[in-house]
Amino acid sequence: MELYIGSKNYSSWSMRPWLVMKHFDLPMQEHLVAFDDFSADGQFKQLMSLISPSGKVPTLIDQDIVVWDSLAICEYLAERFPEKHLWPIDKTQRARARSICAEMHSGFSTLRQYCGMNIEADLRFIGSKLWNDLAGLRADIARIEHIWAERPEIHGFLCGDFSIADAFYAPVVMRFVSYGLPISEQSQQYMQNILTNPAVIQWITQAQAEKQFVQHQEPYRQHREQFLRS
Amino acid sequence: MELYIGSKNYSSWSMRPWLVMKHFDLPMQEHLVAFDDFSADGQFKQLMSLISPSGKVPTLIDQDIVVWDSLAICEYLAERFPEKHLWPIDKTQRARARSICAEMHSGFSTLRQYCGMNIEADLRFIGSKLWNDLAGLRADIARIEHIWAERPEIHGFLCGDFSIADAFYAPVVMRFVSYGLPISEQSQQYMQNILTNPAVIQWITQAQAEKQFVQHQEPYRQHREQFLRS
Ligand SMILES: N[C@@H](CCC(=O)N[C@@H](CS)C(=O)NCC(=O)O)C(=O)O
Ligand SMILES: N[C@@H](CCC(=O)N[C@@H](CS)C(=O)NCC(=O)O)C(=O)O
Repeated sequence: MELYIGSKNYSSWSMRPWLVMKHFDLPMQEHLVAFDDFSADGQFKQLMSLISPSGKVPTLIDQDIVVWDSLAICEYLAERFPEKHLWPIDKTQRARARSICAEMHSGFSTLRQYCGMNIEADLRFIGSKLWNDLAGLRADIARIEHIWAERPEIHGFLCGDFSIADAFYAPVVMRFVSYGLPISEQSQQYMQNILTNPAVIQWITQAQAEKQFVQHQEPYRQHREQFLRS
Repeated sequence: MELYIGSKNYSSWSMRPWLVMKHFDLPMQEHLVAFDDFSADGQFKQLMSLISPSGKVPTLIDQDIVVWDSLAICEYLAERFPEKHLWPIDKTQRARARSICAEMHSGFSTLRQYCGMNIEADLRFIGSKLWNDLAGLRADIARIEHIWAERPEIHGFLCGDFSIADAFYAPVVMRFVSYGLPISEQSQQYMQNILTNPAVIQWITQAQAEKQFVQHQEPYRQHREQFLRS
């Protein structure tokens, strides 16, 4: 199976199915399509519009089947590899896992808009300002902390064992770290579970090694340093 | 199974699982929680925060299992009633159906923001202005028309027979009608398939009968008429 992903430093949507495939050891041939300015004649769009009907990453190709969008890819994989239990086995936890993934997929717009994933960067200087200024950001984070607090075991993952749900919230963990957002101790414990997961470590290491900075993904840093590519 | 939904005139998220349950004749006890201003001490939030961890509609209760979020509810139902084939039977079409639902769930933000569902209203006067002013709206609609154009049969539904995918795009059809957006003939043919579906007809009829208007759902009409409730 071929997984097309974006830059590991920035692409929160790509991180999810990649983590699922890595963690559960699914057969994956990975194609990294580096971010540019997403202009129609740029390399990214030229390639991705051949690969995917949406022209976006992530996209999965499984022989003649194309699946785009991170959540659809995860559902596809869960169905394709039932023995791997990508969703929790327990019915109640499975319903909860699907609910929190779908909630993440369509929500948390302030967090998404103002705190784009940027694994390599130290954005704590702007994080504290955003936290003070934006009630919507504080509300998004409160809801996320609430979701995390309801995990069945404090030392475990969101719905028991590591599942698609954890892959969906991993990019949030990355944001909380980069922007230095003030998080409860209980939540930090969950963040440690994620940050010590081998698949997550591998993604982070590769993200930090990229050093390919793209202007439209750097609304904050460009004022301090010059990171213009293109 | 108990399905909590919002006002039928406005609640595009509620419409989806309701259509699925109606169309496929699943056991459903429906609870309509009328929209108000969503303030913490209002009736809506007071009730929904008891029912659902997200405090939002739609929420499904199946004995001791709670599922919130329209997409999670549909996946839950598909798994619970496999014999009903809520997703397409064909593997390729099923992958496509999941992709376009997840794409809808997380995308089309301009359409969502500026053209809220409002079934009973005639908003053509503002629709043509929005269409002219907003490049993002035109791009959203172009992508939707592209998705619709790829349906396997011109006289059929998005992925063959009526499926969750059609329930996900039904609120878009409602918007295209209310705002009078300029749509190709091919797309209008698909809209007719939706608008003549018995479950859709039932929802529309009930939406039109509601006549309970809420200010924050009426960014356009409030300037012409007085529709303030609360
Ligand atoms: N809902 C989609 C979102 C995909 C998405 O927006 N991907 C971005 C990169 S993280 C992209 O490819 N952008 C290119 C563009 O917008 O043209 C998913 O979950 O996969
Ligand atoms: N992604 C959710 C969205 C649910 C949602 O936003 N519902 C709205 C009504 S359509 C709601 O309950 N709003 C109440 C609030 O925001 O407090 C879904 O698909 O179910």
